[in-house]
Amino acid sequence: MELIVYLAGQIHDNWREEIVSKAREVKLPLKFVGPQTNHDRSDDIGEDILGKQPNNLYRDDAASSINNFRTQVLLQKADIVIALFGEKYKQWNTAMDVSAAITMNKPTIIIRPEVLIHPLKELSNKANVTVETIEQAIEVLAYIYE
Amino acid sequence: MELIVYLAGQIHDNWREEIVSKAREVKLPLKFVGPQTNHDRSDDIGEDILGKQPNNLYRDDAASSINNFRTQVLLQKADIVIALFGEKYKQWNTAMDVSAAITMNKPTIIIRPEVLIHPLKELSNKANVTVETIEQAIEVLAYIYE
Amino acid sequence: MELIVYLAGQIHDNWREEIVSKAREVKLPLKFVGPQTNHDRSDDIGEDILGKQPNNLYRDDAASSINNFRTQVLLQKADIVIALFGEKYKQWNTAMDVSAAITMNKPTIIIRPEVLIHPLKELSNKANVTVETIEQAIEVLAYIYE
Amino acid sequence: MELIVYLAGQIHDNWREEIVSKAREVKLPLKFVGPQTNHDRSDDIGEDILGKQPNNLYRDDAASSINNFRTQVLLQKADIVIALFGEKYKQWNTAMDVSAAITMNKPTIIIRPEVLIHPLKELSNKANVTVETIEQAIEVLAYIYE
Amino acid sequence: MELIVYLAGQIHDNWREEIVSKAREVKLPLKFVGPQTNHDRSDDIGEDILGKQPNNLYRDDAASSINNFRTQVLLQKADIVIALFGEKYKQWNTAMDVSAAITMNKPTIIIRPEVLIHPLKELSNKANVTVETIEQAIEVLAYIYE
Amino acid sequence: MELIVYLAGQIHDNWREEIVSKAREVKLPLKFVGPQTNHDRSDDIGEDILGKQPNNLYRDDAASSINNFRTQVLLQKADIVIALFGEKYKQWNTAMDVSAAITMNKPTIIIRPEVLIHPLKELSNKANVTVETIEQAIEVLAYIYE
Amino acid sequence: MELIVYLAGQIHDNWREEIVSKAREVKLPLKFVGPQTNHDRSDDIGEDILGKQPNNLYRDDAASSINNFRTQVLLQKADIVIALFGEKYKQWNTAMDVSAAITMNKPTIIIRPEVLIHPLKELSNKANVTVETIEQAIEVLAYIYE
Amino acid sequence: MELIVYLAGQIHDNWREEIVSKAREVKLPLKFVGPQTNHDRSDDIGEDILGKQPNNLYRDDAASSINNFRTQVLLQKADIVIALFGEKYKQWNTAMDVSAAITMNKPTIIIRPEVLIHPLKELSNKANVTVETIEQAIEVLAYIYE
Repeated sequence: MELIVYLAGQIHDNWREEIVSKAREVKLPLKFVGPQTNHDRSDDIGEDILGKQPNNLYRDDAASSINNFRTQVLLQKADIVIALFGEKYKQWNTAMDVSAAITMNKPTIIIRPEVLIHPLKELSNKANVTVETIEQAIEVLAYIYE
Repeated sequence: MELIVYLAGQIHDNWREEIVSKAREVKLPLKFVGPQTNHDRSDDIGEDILGKQPNNLYRDDAASSINNFRTQVLLQKADIVIALFGEKYKQWNTAMDVSAAITMNKPTIIIRPEVLIHPLKELSNKANVTVETIEQAIEVLAYIYE
Repeated sequence: MELIVYLAGQIHDNWREEIVSKAREVKLPLKFVGPQTNHDRSDDIGEDILGKQPNNLYRDDAASSINNFRTQVLLQKADIVIALFGEKYKQWNTAMDVSAAITMNKPTIIIRPEVLIHPLKELSNKANVTVETIEQAIEVLAYIYE
Repeated sequence: MELIVYLAGQIHDNWREEIVSKAREVKLPLKFVGPQTNHDRSDDIGEDILGKQPNNLYRDDAASSINNFRTQVLLQKADIVIALFGEKYKQWNTAMDVSAAITMNKPTIIIRPEVLIHPLKELSNKANVTVETIEQAIEVLAYIYE
Repeated sequence: MELIVYLAGQIHDNWREEIVSKAREVKLPLKFVGPQTNHDRSDDIGEDILGKQPNNLYRDDAASSINNFRTQVLLQKADIVIALFGEKYKQWNTAMDVSAAITMNKPTIIIRPEVLIHPLKELSNKANVTVETIEQAIEVLAYIYE
Repeated sequence: MELIVYLAGQIHDNWREEIVSKAREVKLPLKFVGPQTNHDRSDDIGEDILGKQPNNLYRDDAASSINNFRTQVLLQKADIVIALFGEKYKQWNTAMDVSAAITMNKPTIIIRPEVLIHPLKELSNKANVTVETIEQAIEVLAYIYE
Repeated sequence: MELIVYLAGQIHDNWREEIVSKAREVKLPLKFVGPQTNHDRSDDIGEDILGKQPNNLYRDDAASSINNFRTQVLLQKADIVIALFGEKYKQWNTAMDVSAAITMNKPTIIIRPEVLIHPLKELSNKANVTVETIEQAIEVLAYIYE
Repeated sequence: MELIVYLAGQIHDNWREEIVSKAREVKLPLKFVGPQTNHDRSDDIGEDILGKQPNNLYRDDAASSINNFRTQVLLQKADIVIALFGEKYKQWNTAMDVSAAITMNKPTIIIRPEVLIHPLKELSNKANVTVETIEQAIEVLAYIYE
């Protein structure tokens, strides 16, 4: 049974590629989807499509309307959601995506380092599983197929 | 028509009292609810009720189970949700609460300073209204009754 | 049993007052709610609260964020929705409000003159009842209490 | 991942063919569905199937029952909805379809010329993205696959 | 705790009055609602409000649009639904109302004579409780308050 | 796009075969599902599987639990529901199935002879389309693909 | 703000009275509801109302139809659900009620002794809070009002 | 039409293999899913992935978070749920799973021996069908395809 997994999280590095390849290594029949990972393209997409905006507020909202559109399409298709948190970046959009997923009853896994236990305590309590590494997340996914 | 407003946000200062009193000044028939605002009590509530926990991970999860319980009760009763963001604190639980509210189709207002436009761009795009000050939020609430 | 009725429609004249007073005449225990009826205030509310906007697109979106917020709050409280259509004005927001209501399973009445039969045919088919006058709408409401 | 896109809008010209072919040019794995585009057939379908109706009111309602039936089947299958508005025609059924889609949480794109900013302001505020041209709409769709 | 009970069933005799008075006798804090019980008024309401219709098909649909509107308003307010079936009349609208209630997760009681066991077997299996007399239905209601 | 159509109605004759073959004639990509059509098997299935029951009430309920189970499985898979009514038989289970479908927002077509206009008026008003013959129902289905 | 609390659990002793009085002691504005607590009445209610049943299977099902009816009415009204588990009795109906509550998104508290940690581990993980004593449950309820 | 069946129940023996092979014998196009059936692995999975836990309470909760995650993924994919109860083991997680399924409107079959009629009476009343043997459950499944 193929399952679709949405990978929510920052788009400043390519952690998603690590998840995808580790899942492939253990031959999990999963399809991974996620946001636009080219950070500049993600920030520019509003002006790229809709044209120059008056200032950064509208530039950001134009980009967000398109990024949120993409997320909504893919999140609704997802069977599982994984959210990765790290020490850098505000990641309020990550918290937004995983909370929307939980409220939509999608099974969720949070990946976060030990140092973020305290600020993520409420989200961790609501998510299904909280792990510290990508390997552990893969193990949880693989467990579905055992 | 009395409406219930849930005030999501950090519990390190008493910004909620400002909203409550400003709403009272203009005689809005609103009832305000929110999380436990005594920060120590909020962090301690798990151990206060359930007893000493093995370490900070479990201490935090015990507290969060009770804090999330309270939030779920009050959020479900709310007709409107206001979320305040500031420059201090991670506020991932605030993002979690307001995203849950939006996903539950509750009308939401986000209050955030200009300097947080960029990290809150996706949430702002999904929320109904984004303002910069408490006064503006009160004006939006008052507008319901004009 | 008091019921809440949302009155959707143009805000260029005071047709709502006619509905409210006719309902009062026959002592129907109904509470009527609706959008801001001062047309200038409705168009200005974005800039009134959020400040001057770069141009008319943002001026309109700012106002709409606040008007839609108000509509969402009141529409969710409504037990019944009445939508009035007339020959003037585009009224796409009226069609938007009544379609949202129908999709939310709220019982709806459409009031429209005979000359608008053809352009409203699809909406009329989905709404519960379509009438031509305010008096007929009042009769349908009164019928609930017979 | 193939996605289904419902194209809501007037059926007086073949703007849908432009969307379909532009999407094919950039090899987007999308399936497009929509209403009956033969305008006479759309208006006649009630009498075509159910027989002659007493007058235009019933003729229109008979046709609408069948057109709304078709829309409901296809809209429920859709992952995305695009609604095109133009300066001609009342387009209340277009507003009805896109508002139903938004209320059903389907990601939506509105295409409208600049001159319609004001009358569509509320719908634009609720839809995910508003663009001015078909090319921009295609770009937003293509962005899902980047 | 006052509860609202919708009484679905034929409107050819006043069985509802029996339920209401028996409930009052045992002081149950229940509010009873139901359809228009004046059979002629129920059949005429379409033409009464909307005017003469071309023939009986439209006369019946006009009346039904208004009767279904009333039912939808009251059924949505109901906490409990009781449906009475008898040997006379087709009662397809009764079956429609109680099936809608069951699908809306409203607790339902069916009252039917023994001779109707077979034709009501599927509905009885889906409803919460099936009884043969009004007295038994009252006992089930009273049981809520023991 | 293949669609699944649930055929609700009496199981005393093979009207479903007529629908299936007429749909095949015009090459509609539809899959038809429905209840057990062997009337004796349908009535006996409870005792066939669960063993002899004390009397006809329990015999009927045992059969209904299994027939309703089958209907629930197939109805949930259906994209469209067609319900056929005729002058014979009480058909309360047919009314139950089509009302459940309508309440579940499934597009529905009712087929009924002219003589049943009056007793089916409320159901017809809530269903999408009402026709008199199987041919007309097929035309409505075919219209989806034009 | 008064809240309604459903108390799920065995009806062999009067643990509910302890909860009610402890809540009253600390003046919590809560209304407590629950199942029929007279065990014989609960088991007999089917035959009490519907008459003698053929054997214990039907006796039990008749009683359960009426007990489940009562539970459904009260559980839907509840804002919070508390489920108490003990070492005696199978308590599958308790597990059924609290799981239904959790699936309905009702905030839930489980009370269970330490010795039942292992068999209740999955339910505890899904419920909001798990405590060991009634006093702790009261503290969690009181926390809503701090 | 392939259907997915979730098999809920104890994991101490391989009753699921009996269901799978019996279904294969009669060529039912069913796909069976269920929990981890290696009992030690199921109890250990928390510590296996997340590391040693402070004591059995946390060990059990860690395992349950991952087991519940798997159940949620597979249960949401299921078209049908079968729950087997036996005289050994508390089976509160089984009751939890089947009650969640019923509340999610999934068609359910309960398999239980006669001796468990009384403690399962409420769950049996809510489930679609209750049988005593695996063979009977297979017959009910096969009936869908007759």
